[in-house]
Amino acid sequence: MTKDSFSLSCPLPNEKGSVIRLGHGSGGRMSHELFESIFLPAFNNEILAKRQDAAIIELESKNIAITTDSYVVNPIFFPGGDIGSLCVHGTINDLCMQGAEPLYITTSFIIEEGFAIDDLKKIVSSICQAASQTNVKVIAGDTKVVNRGAADKIFINTTGIGKILLANPPGATKVNVGDSIIVSGDIGRHGMAVMCARNSFELETQLESDSAPLNEMVLQLVKEGIELHCLRDITRGGLATCLNEIAEVSGMEIEIDHSSIPLIEPVQSACEILGLDPLFVACEGRFIAIVPEKFSDSTLDIMRQYEIGNNASKIGTVKKSAPGRVILKTSMGARRILDMLSGEQLPRIC
Amino acid sequence: MTKDSFSLSCPLPNEKGSVIRLGHGSGGRMSHELFESIFLPAFNNEILAKRQDAAIIELESKNIAITTDSYVVNPIFFPGGDIGSLCVHGTINDLCMQGAEPLYITTSFIIEEGFAIDDLKKIVSSICQAASQTNVKVIAGDTKVVNRGAADKIFINTTGIGKILLANPPGATKVNVGDSIIVSGDIGRHGMAVMCARNSFELETQLESDSAPLNEMVLQLVKEGIELHCLRDITRGGLATCLNEIAEVSGMEIEIDHSSIPLIEPVQSACEILGLDPLFVACEGRFIAIVPEKFSDSTLDIMRQYEIGNNASKIGTVKKSAPGRVILKTSMGARRILDMLSGEQLPRIC
Repeated sequence: MTKDSFSLSCPLPNEKGSVIRLGHGSGGRMSHELFESIFLPAFNNEILAKRQDAAIIELESKNIAITTDSYVVNPIFFPGGDIGSLCVHGTINDLCMQGAEPLYITTSFIIEEGFAIDDLKKIVSSICQAASQTNVKVIAGDTKVVNRGAADKIFINTTGIGKILLANPPGATKVNVGDSIIVSGDIGRHGMAVMCARNSFELETQLESDSAPLNEMVLQLVKEGIELHCLRDITRGGLATCLNEIAEVSGMEIEIDHSSIPLIEPVQSACEILGLDPLFVACEGRFIAIVPEKFSDSTLDIMRQYEIGNNASKIGTVKKSAPGRVILKTSMGARRILDMLSGEQLPRIC
Repeated sequence: MTKDSFSLSCPLPNEKGSVIRLGHGSGGRMSHELFESIFLPAFNNEILAKRQDAAIIELESKNIAITTDSYVVNPIFFPGGDIGSLCVHGTINDLCMQGAEPLYITTSFIIEEGFAIDDLKKIVSSICQAASQTNVKVIAGDTKVVNRGAADKIFINTTGIGKILLANPPGATKVNVGDSIIVSGDIGRHGMAVMCARNSFELETQLESDSAPLNEMVLQLVKEGIELHCLRDITRGGLATCLNEIAEVSGMEIEIDHSSIPLIEPVQSACEILGLDPLFVACEGRFIAIVPEKFSDSTLDIMRQYEIGNNASKIGTVKKSAPGRVILKTSMGARRILDMLSGEQLPRIC
């Protein structure tokens, strides 16, 4: 269902006022009205329409991938997306990083009393659009309403279920010495778009989140026979954290060339002004692919066919002299250890 | 893993203080420490141990049931349980109401900055114990930390996956005229235990939540060949809301005999003092079974073999003269419509 048809077909439960009340999470009449007037018409599918305690589905495969995430992003609307599109993209991307094709998602809402129903509709509409774009169905859900002050506007939990496409799914333990490390696009847009929106901070160039589904691009890599040793989407903690996770689990050295890391100018400027290191800033539509060196060019060619991949770049090579470490080669030729951050550079980014 | 072995094997990340900080939700070093020191040893299984973006599993069956719920109960610890045991029981019960055997759950935490790590460990320990009691594995999870005041202590989202056991799963549309309506135990304990805990309200008899997993009892009904037309666990909105949902979807009249509804004295007293109708008070370990009249006695016999089922009772019959309605016969012989409540009698009960 498209955004427009949803907006047209969904009547607002205006009789009770235009905000969410505690009763909308009660399980009683108001909960039913919310489900029937907003969620069911939006997520429109035969599984949800059975209104059961649990959705019953027949999977195409017994080999499946499952992921779950809670979304607490602040602000809930930001340039390039909102908490609704974000929760679908994040979940889809976690599934395809395992070489799985996303099939179904569940969405569960925790809403603060007094939240505008119009905002809920916008978010649900974004979920619909993102789900429809990636061919996933929303098959189960839940809504809880908490009293004013007990939650910050709205939190969404999404669980995703996908079908494993590869007999030998990618994973950090499959990384080998000599493999190429490729990033699918420029980094840090999501984190900086959210930070700028939160601080009502205006740049000359409007900065939009990179939030996007990666399933099509990954499916294409699979179809074209690229040997995928490891895939990892870059989210909380940014590129540096992702690379450290891979280095730790694989026991390899990850050597990165700073000058080859793709970064657009507005992200760089915003990071400088706010004193942040872009290597630790979250993306929501970028990933790292680690492939044998001979697949390096073809991987980049495939990625660059997509708008979200037009800044794809080979950023480094897997080595072995510093096991478990990420080494950053600077433009001056120096080499330094790039560690994970301990705490939080940007809270509530997703 | 049992509660005790978990407590012993789980080191507290004390260096950073004994409370949750924003950094524990950052995806960086502190997030990793939390996962490695609390979640991984507690939920101890080989799927979670792969530390992937998504869990990879091989299901025993392609026919599965999926359910999701967010838990926002207040207070988080109450007589007879806590938010941890509650989220597992609630999820397990939603699955078995579809005649499914629970296999896997995911847990996702939204935690307020400053939450005591000892309390988190207690909750995680309860999740372990409840999961181990019902033979389900916790295979994926997420932790987000929000700033002080942006959430009330801790919220948990649980998604459950189960294997469908019946070729023809129970459902409200299968309900027939003449069927018996059975409730598996006395109602309202959970809601009243939470309300008493919230209001520091003491009764002569300590009232404990009925929170419990129903999968064993349901499995036994399946094994003994009981024809299960409809199963519905009694949660938010209580018995009356459940019955109304069944009446609406089935298009049948549900006739209930007030005097046959099982209710223990402390629940009755607490309801009277607080001015609540026990028919609308939540349970978390009770369900309604609708079966052909000839299976009525055997259903009750099976239920009563379990401690949680020793107050099981036949409470009514499916009729057809008032389609979609629940009719309550009072002890005086009067008949009245029992409707759903519109709003919220007891907020944040689960």
